[in-house]
Amino acid sequence: MSKLNWGMIGGGEGSQIGPAHRLGAQADGRFVMAAGALDADPARGRDYAQRLGVAADRAYGDWREMLAAERDRPDRIDLVTVATPNNTHFEITKAFLEAGFHVLCEKPMTMTVAEGEEIVRLARDTGRICAVNYGYSAYPMVRQMKAMVAAGELGAIRCVVANFSHGHHAAGDDADNPRVRWRYDPAQAGVSGQMADCGIHALHLASFILGDEVRTLSADFASTVPGRVLEDDAMVNFRTESGTVGRLWTSTIALGRQHGLDIQVFGEKAGLRWASEQPNQVYLHRLGGRVEIMEKGEAGLTDEAQRLSRVPIAHPEGFPLAIANIYLDLANRIAGAPAGHLPSAEDGLRSMAAVHAAVASAKADGAWVDARPPMFR
Amino acid sequence: MSKLNWGMIGGGEGSQIGPAHRLGAQADGRFVMAAGALDADPARGRDYAQRLGVAADRAYGDWREMLAAERDRPDRIDLVTVATPNNTHFEITKAFLEAGFHVLCEKPMTMTVAEGEEIVRLARDTGRICAVNYGYSAYPMVRQMKAMVAAGELGAIRCVVANFSHGHHAAGDDADNPRVRWRYDPAQAGVSGQMADCGIHALHLASFILGDEVRTLSADFASTVPGRVLEDDAMVNFRTESGTVGRLWTSTIALGRQHGLDIQVFGEKAGLRWASEQPNQVYLHRLGGRVEIMEKGEAGLTDEAQRLSRVPIAHPEGFPLAIANIYLDLANRIAGAPAGHLPSAEDGLRSMAAVHAAVASAKADGAWVDARPPMFR
Amino acid sequence: MSKLNWGMIGGGEGSQIGPAHRLGAQADGRFVMAAGALDADPARGRDYAQRLGVAADRAYGDWREMLAAERDRPDRIDLVTVATPNNTHFEITKAFLEAGFHVLCEKPMTMTVAEGEEIVRLARDTGRICAVNYGYSAYPMVRQMKAMVAAGELGAIRCVVANFSHGHHAAGDDADNPRVRWRYDPAQAGVSGQMADCGIHALHLASFILGDEVRTLSADFASTVPGRVLEDDAMVNFRTESGTVGRLWTSTIALGRQHGLDIQVFGEKAGLRWASEQPNQVYLHRLGGRVEIMEKGEAGLTDEAQRLSRVPIAHPEGFPLAIANIYLDLANRIAGAPAGHLPSAEDGLRSMAAVHAAVASAKADGAWVDARPPMFR
Amino acid sequence: MSKLNWGMIGGGEGSQIGPAHRLGAQADGRFVMAAGALDADPARGRDYAQRLGVAADRAYGDWREMLAAERDRPDRIDLVTVATPNNTHFEITKAFLEAGFHVLCEKPMTMTVAEGEEIVRLARDTGRICAVNYGYSAYPMVRQMKAMVAAGELGAIRCVVANFSHGHHAAGDDADNPRVRWRYDPAQAGVSGQMADCGIHALHLASFILGDEVRTLSADFASTVPGRVLEDDAMVNFRTESGTVGRLWTSTIALGRQHGLDIQVFGEKAGLRWASEQPNQVYLHRLGGRVEIMEKGEAGLTDEAQRLSRVPIAHPEGFPLAIANIYLDLANRIAGAPAGHLPSAEDGLRSMAAVHAAVASAKADGAWVDARPPMFR
Repeated sequence: MSKLNWGMIGGGEGSQIGPAHRLGAQADGRFVMAAGALDADPARGRDYAQRLGVAADRAYGDWREMLAAERDRPDRIDLVTVATPNNTHFEITKAFLEAGFHVLCEKPMTMTVAEGEEIVRLARDTGRICAVNYGYSAYPMVRQMKAMVAAGELGAIRCVVANFSHGHHAAGDDADNPRVRWRYDPAQAGVSGQMADCGIHALHLASFILGDEVRTLSADFASTVPGRVLEDDAMVNFRTESGTVGRLWTSTIALGRQHGLDIQVFGEKAGLRWASEQPNQVYLHRLGGRVEIMEKGEAGLTDEAQRLSRVPIAHPEGFPLAIANIYLDLANRIAGAPAGHLPSAEDGLRSMAAVHAAVASAKADGAWVDARPPMFR
Repeated sequence: MSKLNWGMIGGGEGSQIGPAHRLGAQADGRFVMAAGALDADPARGRDYAQRLGVAADRAYGDWREMLAAERDRPDRIDLVTVATPNNTHFEITKAFLEAGFHVLCEKPMTMTVAEGEEIVRLARDTGRICAVNYGYSAYPMVRQMKAMVAAGELGAIRCVVANFSHGHHAAGDDADNPRVRWRYDPAQAGVSGQMADCGIHALHLASFILGDEVRTLSADFASTVPGRVLEDDAMVNFRTESGTVGRLWTSTIALGRQHGLDIQVFGEKAGLRWASEQPNQVYLHRLGGRVEIMEKGEAGLTDEAQRLSRVPIAHPEGFPLAIANIYLDLANRIAGAPAGHLPSAEDGLRSMAAVHAAVASAKADGAWVDARPPMFR
Repeated sequence: MSKLNWGMIGGGEGSQIGPAHRLGAQADGRFVMAAGALDADPARGRDYAQRLGVAADRAYGDWREMLAAERDRPDRIDLVTVATPNNTHFEITKAFLEAGFHVLCEKPMTMTVAEGEEIVRLARDTGRICAVNYGYSAYPMVRQMKAMVAAGELGAIRCVVANFSHGHHAAGDDADNPRVRWRYDPAQAGVSGQMADCGIHALHLASFILGDEVRTLSADFASTVPGRVLEDDAMVNFRTESGTVGRLWTSTIALGRQHGLDIQVFGEKAGLRWASEQPNQVYLHRLGGRVEIMEKGEAGLTDEAQRLSRVPIAHPEGFPLAIANIYLDLANRIAGAPAGHLPSAEDGLRSMAAVHAAVASAKADGAWVDARPPMFR
Repeated sequence: MSKLNWGMIGGGEGSQIGPAHRLGAQADGRFVMAAGALDADPARGRDYAQRLGVAADRAYGDWREMLAAERDRPDRIDLVTVATPNNTHFEITKAFLEAGFHVLCEKPMTMTVAEGEEIVRLARDTGRICAVNYGYSAYPMVRQMKAMVAAGELGAIRCVVANFSHGHHAAGDDADNPRVRWRYDPAQAGVSGQMADCGIHALHLASFILGDEVRTLSADFASTVPGRVLEDDAMVNFRTESGTVGRLWTSTIALGRQHGLDIQVFGEKAGLRWASEQPNQVYLHRLGGRVEIMEKGEAGLTDEAQRLSRVPIAHPEGFPLAIANIYLDLANRIAGAPAGHLPSAEDGLRSMAAVHAAVASAKADGAWVDARPPMFR
């Protein structure tokens, strides 16, 4: 299998998400990091890229330079990852898709629903892959949950409860902390704070596992830290297309929760529970039985869960390998090999529609609103 | 210390809550079970009371007989516990208060807000104790949380998240199961199913720990099992008098949760988490610090938490001893000795007002409504 | 059912174990605390007993006074609990048995094997109950484990691993702390420190659950805190009568463990795990299956586990109710009613023999020695 | 940074450990998989290597062919990983060291102590790196524990308790299961079963964290499954050079434990606990304080723990990234860059000496024996 060329925009030195992408892209040896425009500061970005092994002529100062240069190379990159500030995702993704590149975009894919629809259309028109990095959905045990729901092992689904709450913005030191401040500032973050930042991960996880999309929702937003314009705590009730009841709580002031992304699915025959801090187990409770602890890698899991589990049972696999699973299937898809699910531009669009619907509902005192993108209504 | 006489109405053989009351009342040797009308079937009730050590002449066939007989005895009971079907709590409590007895009533105290207000007035007028069995609030570590909030250790409280969800009614066999069926039938259960049954425990816990009452709320109810009229899954967003954001989820179809009563309190300086299935620990996360595991009985807890902890650190104490703490302070109060907090008729009334408010909100698509009893507005 | 009279020796104000006995004895309303010699200081003991509701003439200054007075009363106590310092257990237990009383003795029952054999013979000769307070064996889920082993659900048992380790004597402040110092002083504690204090609980639990007694053992003792003569950390390997391999670790310097009594049983068909800090669950792993969480009170448990579970599933029951289960069956046995297992003088003797064997082995560099009492060889 | 060439011997399709090495070697993009002799079946090995991206002329049929060919290439591999059956580690490692290659050898490094001493001398003489894959020691939080011990945060260390027990060989189907059978057969596995397979991981972890080596030990071995010659359950008591007490239990029949590698360290000022199934947390209990949960990536950890943590706090990192940490420092060492600890041939030798000492002790009924290699006495 020949190696594919991979490039990255953003994710420079000190970034939070950059390492996960590099580990994820390289772990299986399917991609070589061939190009990069890693930093808002061109010199820093060029330097860091070279320290990471990128050749000097492909260590770019910004994404436009990278696009212009890569477009015409015979060994041009096969995939570009967009891990820049949120409000630049749209234009970069658009530009690379239009130039015929496959793209993996960090979430949120866009800032508006209209932009999201444009990306969806562009991906369809160009036939290029436009994936969005909902990496949690690539954990083996999350795939296992999806398979069990699809196979009817839970019976009809009654309720899904998804949370993504942490306490990392509880300090309230926004004035002094630029890494936090922008998140609650509409000028930089757009219409939503925590719902757009974390809530959409939980919402995507719910619809991914259920194989069912959010149709309507009602939201309650709060800005609990004085001075914040955007919400730092939100509750969203929703109903899916098939009528399942949904509950989603997301917060950044939840001291005591480190990375509180968890999901519970309740069906008429069984319930499932998974938490991202212990991603290798799922708790299964069949009606009339006991709670059973399912383990990644155990005998009897679906082929998909086994394929995406890389080391034996009870050897923990973490977040970087979930991201590696995304890259593995990007490589497979690009190579024309069989591949599993990839979170798509459609998923990115749905998230954006849900965020905007939640904002609208919260402003209207929790009125129930349509959460679907116009193009999917 | 001479022993007090105690009587019980309801809680007969096979009842779920009866044993907790008997263990709770007797554990400290402060009460002797002197009278009882334990069963809807008079003969069964008389027989069972005698098997429990009640003298034949005080093993009554029903509560009216008990009231008539006890009223005039020189050694009449000092306290009566009302653990009958919900829709009888009001009239029995009322009758015993009017006759000058102290009462411990199971929750819900009444079926309507008006009844609740009547009980509150009656308790005030008669000067009798009318306590409601919100027993979870008597766990030592719950008292510790309350004390920490009151002492300002968490700073201003931003958000409280309280859940009480289980999966014990997930079977959906209501037609064949009378122990479940009545709960979703308005004719027997009144206006609310799970919110009135369990949600009010979580709500009481929240307001107890915060020392702050619910002012407004917005609710989303669902009857996820076909055929149920009343809700078996509910989400309530609320705001307290002081503006704290509240989230409350309660469910009976949550397969995988056995007794999922838990509460998280998030303040500007720290967060706390407690779960009823492991009642002897509280997780404390101070801003900038690590999560610490507080243990019942450890050095440095408040006097109240220490007083209500009965065996040394890390020897678990469970639900019956929380109930025993309620009875201990009932004995103290009756004896005129110093006593701690007792959940009161006011608490019972507030619960009822919140239930009715939630029902109204849910019917109005989640409109925000006043959750306070009229007499407290 | 008429109430039985109960008396207590030791367990005065501020004692650790006293409250558990009083809660345990009274919770079911089967015993009335009728007499007591609670304290080494006669005046303090009399005063405290009266505050606990004992009549003035039965609030005794010491156990000899109590024995002399109770012996001749027509309403004499039906059961006496001995909760005095360890080195007095033998003479008090002996004296009360000889006077025809039933006795519940705290562990260790005696200081020597010869004394233990004497108590066993005395109990047999007098026909009196002589129980030893191995209360952990009365948890419902421990009874469930025993029943599963007996029923062959685990197949042949291969190995048992029992620990009882905590960090409460890690401070090393023995010189200033009399509550700790005596435990490591041969003049007060006898031949063994932690093995005699806690190790025997774990050992009893192992043999109780297995229904199989320790035959030989090899021990490694350490006094990790400078200045301690007796061991504060011990490891004992053993073999049971039927050849099961045993591992037992016990420590008092294990900072991080609060009450680390736990046991794992491994059979050819399944494994079980239970920990005293979460006594209401057992983890069951059947060969080829998943780990399942068994819950106290769940459907399908044995009758014995159900009988000793007092409140519904997932309502936690703790240590005082395990002790209450011992008292419940003492009441039943005294009343001639059907009763479950009571830890016996034979159990107390076996513990003492094992302690002395461990001491001998440790002194002989871990040589394997016979752990059985001479009278059972 | 130019990429290094990496080759692998063993770890073919279906092997358990192969994927961890490939993920570990490639994750950081420092190594390119350039050569391989992956399988005992030459054709299978060549085919699989090519499917993994190795060029046809470097996809070898066996290690001798690989050695002969790589030795003379100008672009010869910079590092070879030896992941073949245990009884071949010695000769392959020896041959590659002699030819001037750096080696990462799977454990156990050798079958005998004499072989181990030969490898240590060879590594010293050649100046080549000879690392042994004690990968658990490369978890960030294990490094943190080591640093805390070294910094004296625990005070003098009193006791270490290390376990590595699982239930994956409980079926007892050795006759039908060649993947299990060889482990208990002296002809294939040598003198020890589980102690050599897993026990040495726990032992290495203990001495690594303590910075203190095992000096003497006493062992109790059992073959609990009928027909097994070598031990499937072992207990080892030990003392370190500085006198710390050690306890090590290792088992393969422990149904209920999936990957039960855990370690507890008890010092005079604090205790630590870590378990490999949740490798991102350490439980810290300071004397007089509460148990605190330390999190990988939290502020205040040592530089070494931070350097080896690749994604933010509470994003779990698992076993493959611990292996990646080993490879990262191999790359650094080869490149002459600053590098952290690498488990060494000395470590591999010490393990072998301890295994042989444990075997000798177990045969001598637990007699205490010297556990040090002769060359280190």
